[in-house]
Amino acid sequence: MLIEIDFQSEEAIYMQLRNQIVLGIATSVLQEGDVLPSVRQLADDIGINMHTVNKAYSVLRQEGFVTMDRRKGAVVTLDDNKAQAAAEMRRHLRVLLAKGICKNITRAEVHAMVDECFDVYEPQE
Amino acid sequence: MLIEIDFQSEEAIYMQLRNQIVLGIATSVLQEGDVLPSVRQLADDIGINMHTVNKAYSVLRQEGFVTMDRRKGAVVTLDDNKAQAAAEMRRHLRVLLAKGICKNITRAEVHAMVDECFDVYEPQE
Repeated sequence: MLIEIDFQSEEAIYMQLRNQIVLGIATSVLQEGDVLPSVRQLADDIGINMHTVNKAYSVLRQEGFVTMDRRKGAVVTLDDNKAQAAAEMRRHLRVLLAKGICKNITRAEVHAMVDECFDVYEPQE
Repeated sequence: MLIEIDFQSEEAIYMQLRNQIVLGIATSVLQEGDVLPSVRQLADDIGINMHTVNKAYSVLRQEGFVTMDRRKGAVVTLDDNKAQAAAEMRRHLRVLLAKGICKNITRAEVHAMVDECFDVYEPQE
């Protein structure tokens, strides 16, 4: 899997890394049971600090996307705590849409964006 | 306007403060031209550091929700850079929905959540 980090971005590198891995899972590039590169390997590949990779993996573990296996390392494991995920999404959407409304983004426009995203992740027939 | 900060939350206090003010604008509790409390005042009211309030105001300024007036302080001013706001929303939605998809949240469920949020901010007839 290709990880792209934008070193010019204001977004913290560990969050970019976390986001890329989540996008990988959403698009099935990464699947349940897949082993992520070791912290050292990934840090070397991207040219970042091992601590940063560790932090990304730790966030992914907290969010229920990976588990830590003592031998294999970080393994993609999806807990199916859908209720919790939905509550969290609702919380984030509230703020995100409030920002959009302040900038005159309409309900229809948001629905269109949601469809655009879903079309990428799971194309409709 | 009532500001509620959750000191138990993992979310940084300045982000909570920023979010509350954005929600205030979205729900028209705060309107264009309104003057926000002074940094010292708000810090005292909430019982947080002035630096934290400063940081929240500074983020709001960068995001185009307030301008800094030398006499009045932070004034709600909505720049109408809708294109930039839409691009940013699209970027955030991509990650947010990817997370949801990994947890089996469906397209229909997301659309329903979007409607729920909009119903709060701008009730339909």
